[in-house]
Amino acid sequence: MVPRVIYGRGSFGQLADILLPKRRNSEAPFIFLVDDFFEGKELESRIPWLFNDLTIFISAAEEPKTEQVDALVAKIKNDFDELPSGIIGIGGGTVLDLSKAVAIMLNNKGGSEEYQGWDLVQKPALFHVGIPTISGTGAEVSRTAVLSGPERKLGINSDYTTFDQVVLDPDLVVTVPKDQWFFTGMDCFIHCVESLNGTYLNAFSQSYGEKAFDLCEEVFLGDLSPKEAEDKLMMASWHGGMSIAYSQVGVAHALSYGLSYVLGTKHGIGNCLVFQHLEEFYPEGVTLFKKMKEKHQIEFPKNVCANLPNSDLETMAQIALSMEPLWENALGKDWHQCIDQEKVVAIYKKI
Amino acid sequence: MVPRVIYGRGSFGQLADILLPKRRNSEAPFIFLVDDFFEGKELESRIPWLFNDLTIFISAAEEPKTEQVDALVAKIKNDFDELPSGIIGIGGGTVLDLSKAVAIMLNNKGGSEEYQGWDLVQKPALFHVGIPTISGTGAEVSRTAVLSGPERKLGINSDYTTFDQVVLDPDLVVTVPKDQWFFTGMDCFIHCVESLNGTYLNAFSQSYGEKAFDLCEEVFLGDLSPKEAEDKLMMASWHGGMSIAYSQVGVAHALSYGLSYVLGTKHGIGNCLVFQHLEEFYPEGVTLFKKMKEKHQIEFPKNVCANLPNSDLETMAQIALSMEPLWENALGKDWHQCIDQEKVVAIYKKI
Repeated sequence: MVPRVIYGRGSFGQLADILLPKRRNSEAPFIFLVDDFFEGKELESRIPWLFNDLTIFISAAEEPKTEQVDALVAKIKNDFDELPSGIIGIGGGTVLDLSKAVAIMLNNKGGSEEYQGWDLVQKPALFHVGIPTISGTGAEVSRTAVLSGPERKLGINSDYTTFDQVVLDPDLVVTVPKDQWFFTGMDCFIHCVESLNGTYLNAFSQSYGEKAFDLCEEVFLGDLSPKEAEDKLMMASWHGGMSIAYSQVGVAHALSYGLSYVLGTKHGIGNCLVFQHLEEFYPEGVTLFKKMKEKHQIEFPKNVCANLPNSDLETMAQIALSMEPLWENALGKDWHQCIDQEKVVAIYKKI
Repeated sequence: MVPRVIYGRGSFGQLADILLPKRRNSEAPFIFLVDDFFEGKELESRIPWLFNDLTIFISAAEEPKTEQVDALVAKIKNDFDELPSGIIGIGGGTVLDLSKAVAIMLNNKGGSEEYQGWDLVQKPALFHVGIPTISGTGAEVSRTAVLSGPERKLGINSDYTTFDQVVLDPDLVVTVPKDQWFFTGMDCFIHCVESLNGTYLNAFSQSYGEKAFDLCEEVFLGDLSPKEAEDKLMMASWHGGMSIAYSQVGVAHALSYGLSYVLGTKHGIGNCLVFQHLEEFYPEGVTLFKKMKEKHQIEFPKNVCANLPNSDLETMAQIALSMEPLWENALGKDWHQCIDQEKVVAIYKKI
């Protein structure tokens, strides 16, 4: 779990004080990895640079890749004589996962693809701080950094992945575009539905998942002020991430991985595209989801898969069905008897 | 926050594996501080001793004192050539707070009373693990170790106080006597009511407090199986402790401290004795509390304060009213206008 967290509007202003005692010396910089949405915006001017600190703007148009992690690590090692004092990620799930992976790889040998999996990291990461600017992914609290590698999309899951410090400042999410707000919030809602309906659930994950679920209902179907909604969605993301860290996702994430693998669909919208057609597996969750979509007048792209060649649909289905723990969590040990390639392809064709 | 936690029935069995990599060498023991309730019981035989590890049984009949911490630290330093590899606390709030304080004082100079307050600890504590055997205090997750000192009852509040690892194993709470189960569970319920009705509340604490409150309602008024109730009360304690760590308690804790100072009343029962008479401040909370008391047929001692000399009642009231942040949290900045010595004494007289 994240050992240190501060919460509150304006808490970003405490970042300088947080970093100061972690600065090894004036030659060991802090590297700020920042969503390029903020380039030239007010937030950029509030980053507490000192000495030779460096900001690198990151596009969140694509999800993080192992080669991108390795390139960033090579650049940082090349540009500085000393290892950095730490890595500060400021952005959404893409930037936060990238920051976690870079902090790990600056202190571990080889390429990042060698660490995709569970508990493969040998040495602690550099000090790293996560500052979310959008709510829902849970990346700020999770012990994974999901990367697309040459062979697979899989997280670096380890105790060293988790951030050393998180800053939760709801003022940072006010600039999020509405569609992105919805898709990312639904990432949280959907993983709660999957976790709470899963066979892997225990009372620890359940308590976090239920709280995140309740907060999502308040935010997306309740009658909150914008500030209350921002505050509560930030906490929903936090609790949802905690729930998932100790349980597992399910059918929606399995299918969304297939979609993402073949079409490059981003995680938040991919989950939504899939989840709308999963009444069979999550009847109550899908009903609520459709109410939320309607209330906020969110339009989804249509005919995303309808005209794809069969070979693409089959690849998608194979990727989805290869996520065995997700299916076992969703459908139990006998999941093979409930789902097959044909059924998965039929769901994709509806998207 | 606690950086590592494992949860689940039987998870105590993983303690040996958790400790092994933290063992500095065969001369640096682990010290197990264990509630003396478990002396000679099965749990004692499951403690994973190695080399010169030491178990010290602790009576929880009284709450932890600074002199007790200092005596334990002196004994450990005297008995071993090396500092321990770590401190493992197995018990309720008393044993857990004591363990946190001992781990701090083994690595910091002077007496423990010098560290009562906020952020006075200079050096990290020794590695320390918390294993609760009763649910409700939140001591397993909090950043305080409440101690009675020569001058005051006050916590050692610091980032170093928090446990490095917590083991949440609901199997360990099955032996708790019913009264103790109720009083300690109500510690959680009452601090949630105080936190949720406080002026210091923010969305972070609120989300944890609401979840703990809901779980307490399920446990004490719902229709759960014994195992479900054990699981959920353990999580209520966890979330309740998180809520309080980032907010503040209120009227019940202020009055309970006064009671405890003069009569030595233990924290859990002290809170209950006070809270039953706080309808004016927490009307909904007190109504629920009385339902819970009735459902579980818990009897409270009577005439605890009725026949005390006025001087004792006045001392209690002075101690209670000196807890300024608690009153400000409960009643706002103008709390002086809502409460005075006379009113506090009148409440005590009802107990």
